[in-house]
Amino acid sequence: MPPPAEHPGSPTLADSVRLADDGVHILDRRVFPFEHRWVHARTVEEVARAIEDMVTQSSGPYFAVLWGMVLAAREVADADPDTARAHLRAAGDRLIATRPTNDQPRKAVAHVLAAVDAAEHDIAAAALAGARAGDADYRQRSRAMGRAAADLLPQQARVLTHCWGDLYLVGMVEAALQQGKQLSFVCTETRPYLQGARLTAETLAEMGVQTTLVTDGMPASLMRAGQLDALVTASDRVTMDGHVINKVGTLQLAVAAHTFGVPYHALCHAPDPESATGADVPIEFRDGEDVLHTLGRRTASRRVQGLYPAFDVTDPRFVSTVVTDRGAFPPQRVHEYWSGGTAS
Amino acid sequence: MPPPAEHPGSPTLADSVRLADDGVHILDRRVFPFEHRWVHARTVEEVARAIEDMVTQSSGPYFAVLWGMVLAAREVADADPDTARAHLRAAGDRLIATRPTNDQPRKAVAHVLAAVDAAEHDIAAAALAGARAGDADYRQRSRAMGRAAADLLPQQARVLTHCWGDLYLVGMVEAALQQGKQLSFVCTETRPYLQGARLTAETLAEMGVQTTLVTDGMPASLMRAGQLDALVTASDRVTMDGHVINKVGTLQLAVAAHTFGVPYHALCHAPDPESATGADVPIEFRDGEDVLHTLGRRTASRRVQGLYPAFDVTDPRFVSTVVTDRGAFPPQRVHEYWSGGTAS
Repeated sequence: MPPPAEHPGSPTLADSVRLADDGVHILDRRVFPFEHRWVHARTVEEVARAIEDMVTQSSGPYFAVLWGMVLAAREVADADPDTARAHLRAAGDRLIATRPTNDQPRKAVAHVLAAVDAAEHDIAAAALAGARAGDADYRQRSRAMGRAAADLLPQQARVLTHCWGDLYLVGMVEAALQQGKQLSFVCTETRPYLQGARLTAETLAEMGVQTTLVTDGMPASLMRAGQLDALVTASDRVTMDGHVINKVGTLQLAVAAHTFGVPYHALCHAPDPESATGADVPIEFRDGEDVLHTLGRRTASRRVQGLYPAFDVTDPRFVSTVVTDRGAFPPQRVHEYWSGGTAS
Repeated sequence: MPPPAEHPGSPTLADSVRLADDGVHILDRRVFPFEHRWVHARTVEEVARAIEDMVTQSSGPYFAVLWGMVLAAREVADADPDTARAHLRAAGDRLIATRPTNDQPRKAVAHVLAAVDAAEHDIAAAALAGARAGDADYRQRSRAMGRAAADLLPQQARVLTHCWGDLYLVGMVEAALQQGKQLSFVCTETRPYLQGARLTAETLAEMGVQTTLVTDGMPASLMRAGQLDALVTASDRVTMDGHVINKVGTLQLAVAAHTFGVPYHALCHAPDPESATGADVPIEFRDGEDVLHTLGRRTASRRVQGLYPAFDVTDPRFVSTVVTDRGAFPPQRVHEYWSGGTAS
């Protein structure tokens, strides 16, 4: 049994990583929505492996890392502060290494370490306070970004999305509904893990938004027919020069949107000041066997190999807007987020 | 048990619709290559339903229609010639109606009716001769087209293909290998039916060509990285002004290829003189439930609807070459196929 909901009324996946006295409980997205199975991670290492094994993804690892850092702090509750801080730093390195492309785990670790470094004693309490602040920060920034994204949608919006944008997408949908906009979604199934077919489709249904599922190859034909008003995706990272790194498949949709005059809005709390351009971002390759299977069942010839680059890089010329928690920027000007430039 | 092979040495799928005394035997592509199961169609109606139910697809329906017309002729072997011809015309209409987008079933029916109309008596023998001529014609034209397509490939060619090009693709691969070219393929899995993962991947392996499988969303990222030399697909129809109608997903790949400077060669025996432009071609919509399932298993949320346009239309501006059995044409000049223009 998972701990009680932290955010009652949220969609299931927006409250799917929870801290408890006995560890971190993580809703298993590999089987959602067919099963609501929770994975119980008792240690930092078990949290790290759950992230690596895709028990949770999208916004999920950010929260898992926050609460994983709290587990790490508990492990050294009786140690002196310097020893405890060193242990937390090592735990942070382990958790950051779980997924190389997304930059949110690093931010989660930074939240906790900042609180720990500022504390003179009771490191465990400081870590918990830092994690809670990180949780609140992520949710508040997603809501702010969501409002800015909703502002860009027409009154009646047929929105294409890819993979599962998690709290980013939830923030936009909540804001658009509050603005009285009429939304419908087309979502791609997002092979090989089917995040769109399972996570996005289920959550939009939870939120009462009419949703149509297509395969990953179909969106261009809908764009050509004039049936889509916007492409909106989350991003795993946006570089200072406006490259968008997101789930593989995003580039292909962005190119099609650009070709057929459909605006592409990429959601991102903030561009990453440590990534100058797309080539600076490591692209995670996952097991090619995943492409040969669907939910564990072999779906390809046994005589072929698979290839699975998990993310791709979309050039700024294919991106209409990067929507941040400080408003919307043209991709070429997203670096102004950090220099106090005025968002459009 | 199916009848013995008609074309020994061919890849399995190139010899997968066979005529026998007891009907037409059709290899079930819905379960290939995991199972080699043959569907036995005893009547024209059973052949038509097998096509509608996707027992066979790509080049398969052409051959199924040829042999289905022979079954129709057998049904009226003792009738007078006029009655027999009327029966065959009705059978042809039924078979043509099975799949509205591909224009090959119509050509198969025309082959048989031409032979029947030219015969004074023994309609059944004429139908069989017409069907055999249609079989030989399709194979010869696929080889000629395949040679012209192979000519367009570089000496070391990394070729992307989508769905399953059947005899068109086999013709090109055989010709390229005879030319001593070094081929490797990337094929898309082609959801929802996974023709690429199952049919293309297996057949290229049978032919000894190194093949990598990707999901339908990945090719653009490979193109951006300079890892593909050409996109080659079959086509269900090419219009006189160079629109290519093919399996849904083709447009998205063609747009990406155009954007990243990868040539797109569309294979087609001949443009369809009855289709002036893309809007003239009916696009078949299949059951949206197919998008919600993978090989019969539910793979999407139960709270979403699916949409399945089975084909899309690629504008000539995204097509580099239409390769016919009379050589390669720029799409804007493919109408010259019928006016004696010289292929490039």
